[in-house]
Amino acid sequence: MAYLLGIDPGYGRCGWAIISDSFSYIDCGVIETKPTDENRLLDVYTSLSDIIQKYSPVSCGVEKLFFNKNVKTAIPVAQVIGVIKLLLAQHNIPYAEYTPVQIKQSITGYGRSSKDQLAFMVKKILKTPEIIQYDDAFDALAIALCHCLALPGYSIIKKNI
Amino acid sequence: MAYLLGIDPGYGRCGWAIISDSFSYIDCGVIETKPTDENRLLDVYTSLSDIIQKYSPVSCGVEKLFFNKNVKTAIPVAQVIGVIKLLLAQHNIPYAEYTPVQIKQSITGYGRSSKDQLAFMVKKILKTPEIIQYDDAFDALAIALCHCLALPGYSIIKKNI
Repeated sequence: MAYLLGIDPGYGRCGWAIISDSFSYIDCGVIETKPTDENRLLDVYTSLSDIIQKYSPVSCGVEKLFFNKNVKTAIPVAQVIGVIKLLLAQHNIPYAEYTPVQIKQSITGYGRSSKDQLAFMVKKILKTPEIIQYDDAFDALAIALCHCLALPGYSIIKKNI
Repeated sequence: MAYLLGIDPGYGRCGWAIISDSFSYIDCGVIETKPTDENRLLDVYTSLSDIIQKYSPVSCGVEKLFFNKNVKTAIPVAQVIGVIKLLLAQHNIPYAEYTPVQIKQSITGYGRSSKDQLAFMVKKILKTPEIIQYDDAFDALAIALCHCLALPGYSIIKKNI
């Protein structure tokens, strides 16, 4: 059994999740940094390093940055993504990026499904704990699941849900 | 005497420069990565680590990302800036960001001065070699000089030019 990592990149709050390649929930959480923190990028790097050390994931899915009209908020998130990609390269962990539409399409079969429908399927497939405290951690679980489904030879049919 | 680092962030070509805090040219160059390189962010990180190890700069100036209309080209540069900021934090090197207008204002006294006028002043103050091969390396020299001028207690008047 191998572990997969899912990351929902964010500056203030970065979601992460570990699932197994047999579609089982393992762990998830968020890395929070505050504007008053001196080195927010270093904090994200260090926390994510610890998670990688703990679980040794073999592959990673990252949510692709959505180019909205607000470039100013996109830039800090892009800086976080740069740090994440560096860390994955340093650990020789291959990654793929997925858009929100790709994630929904992969998990529910419809790219514009509702948040509730997506949550229902993620919970059902991964058998997550009833309460996941942070939305960003839950999003990271969806990304990890989408990544697992995209891996060659993996199919949700393998799991009896 | 202490060394200062200047960085002109870029994805394909990242300029860097080392000057002394007595306004002397020390070294400069570019870090080039190609689209075919597997881990471009890791390449930038490793090359810049080597430069920091070699010169132990005490402080760094970085050109601030200009928000142009092309967000898609801004995002990879923002990822490089994220990696640069992480590296500086890991080495406890404080940094400041400067816009092109601030750099020109600082060095020529006029924020919209021509490229030639800026080059003339950078060469005059730092006594650079006659030929600097890459524009990005030269831009990094200008950024390092701007940063040196912005440090408390430093003034160009100190140097007899």
